[in-house]
Amino acid sequence: MASAAMQEEQVKLLGFWFSPFVRRVEWALKFKGIEYEYVEEDLTNKSSLLLTSNPVHKTVPVLLHNGNPIVESLVIIEYIDENWKQNPILPQDPHERAKARFWANFIEQKITEAARTALLTQGEQQEKVVKELKEAMEVLEGEAAAKLNDKTLFFGGKNGLGYVDIVLGWICNWAEVIEEVGGFKVLDPQKQPHIHKWMANFVEEPLIKPTLLPKEKMVVYFQMVRQAYLGLAAKK
Amino acid sequence: MASAAMQEEQVKLLGFWFSPFVRRVEWALKFKGIEYEYVEEDLTNKSSLLLTSNPVHKTVPVLLHNGNPIVESLVIIEYIDENWKQNPILPQDPHERAKARFWANFIEQKITEAARTALLTQGEQQEKVVKELKEAMEVLEGEAAAKLNDKTLFFGGKNGLGYVDIVLGWICNWAEVIEEVGGFKVLDPQKQPHIHKWMANFVEEPLIKPTLLPKEKMVVYFQMVRQAYLGLAAKK
Repeated sequence: MASAAMQEEQVKLLGFWFSPFVRRVEWALKFKGIEYEYVEEDLTNKSSLLLTSNPVHKTVPVLLHNGNPIVESLVIIEYIDENWKQNPILPQDPHERAKARFWANFIEQKITEAARTALLTQGEQQEKVVKELKEAMEVLEGEAAAKLNDKTLFFGGKNGLGYVDIVLGWICNWAEVIEEVGGFKVLDPQKQPHIHKWMANFVEEPLIKPTLLPKEKMVVYFQMVRQAYLGLAAKK
Repeated sequence: MASAAMQEEQVKLLGFWFSPFVRRVEWALKFKGIEYEYVEEDLTNKSSLLLTSNPVHKTVPVLLHNGNPIVESLVIIEYIDENWKQNPILPQDPHERAKARFWANFIEQKITEAARTALLTQGEQQEKVVKELKEAMEVLEGEAAAKLNDKTLFFGGKNGLGYVDIVLGWICNWAEVIEEVGGFKVLDPQKQPHIHKWMANFVEEPLIKPTLLPKEKMVVYFQMVRQAYLGLAAKK
């Protein structure tokens, strides 16, 4: 019975090589030790499986578990954590879970979204959002300073990586690229030394290291995306 | 032991009469049958308890459970549901939970936030966000049409109210007010008949009905807020 159930279990991830949101889901799956099939989407010609699985947003990542689609990276990570109990990603204590969700949302709304907007804008509009990003990084640095030390390297606590680490992780690979292409700073190692140290530890994790992308390839792609966006904005 | 534990249990909610985010938390507490102390905040002179409990956003709602602060309405509702097991708010099945979280996020980001922005802007800026709001309402109408019928009155399913209902609930009391003050439509009963019917059922729920605010008092307050915002924006 167990073997039949395992045979039936199908985990498929619709992704795009460049997406930090897809990468989070991959980290969560690897963290749990879940076997999955990765399917690269062509975002200029989306598959019907993607369009029917995520009809509202039509974006990756989509996790298909035995054919059931789950979308949005944070929702997918919670699903993975609830469905496969080994190696918990969120803390077990309800108050600690609430704090982890708070910081995950903070990173998502105030840092990830701000960095994305800053990359795709210029002039006054960019200045405004870069200022907000800087303020948010200062707030996160405060949390990192309070929580992290020589013994607690990650936000997940003593057990290592956790939810907040997985949600913030993109910064280790994408920030440098965004800075080069967008012409603004995401992270200031002088002003955010605790986040900087967290990054240095994060990229050395055996689970993370092999998943990092080469900067050069990313820069070329992001330059193309930025030019396309600014071109469209100029035509409006 | 049980009686001592219950005696020690302290649940306090820092709120503001007008906040739809606070109201959600009150609905969740009442839904669970949890006794709590409500503390009205003066938002022009915030208490030190509020400022120390929510140092990042400095906003209500804040739930204090035995002194531990939990902030952000969706995070608080998940906390309440995890901490008090009676009358589940989220579905038990992981895939159904993921779908409920997806729609809760959709309502929060595409409808609540759009309605708030539209209320506090004018001209072209308002037109743009009202258009986005309209599109989002159409998407939600599609979900309501697929899910709701004469037997399933609420998004929570056969067991009645659930997470999505609590997150969307503000629309029943605030939409009319926003429409009058902001001069735009949140809901079109002709185009969104299923949401309109859901609203009619929601406001008749015994748990909800006594918590609704009188429209006149709300209109006066929202007019003041809109004028203050537009005045500040004009000075920039």
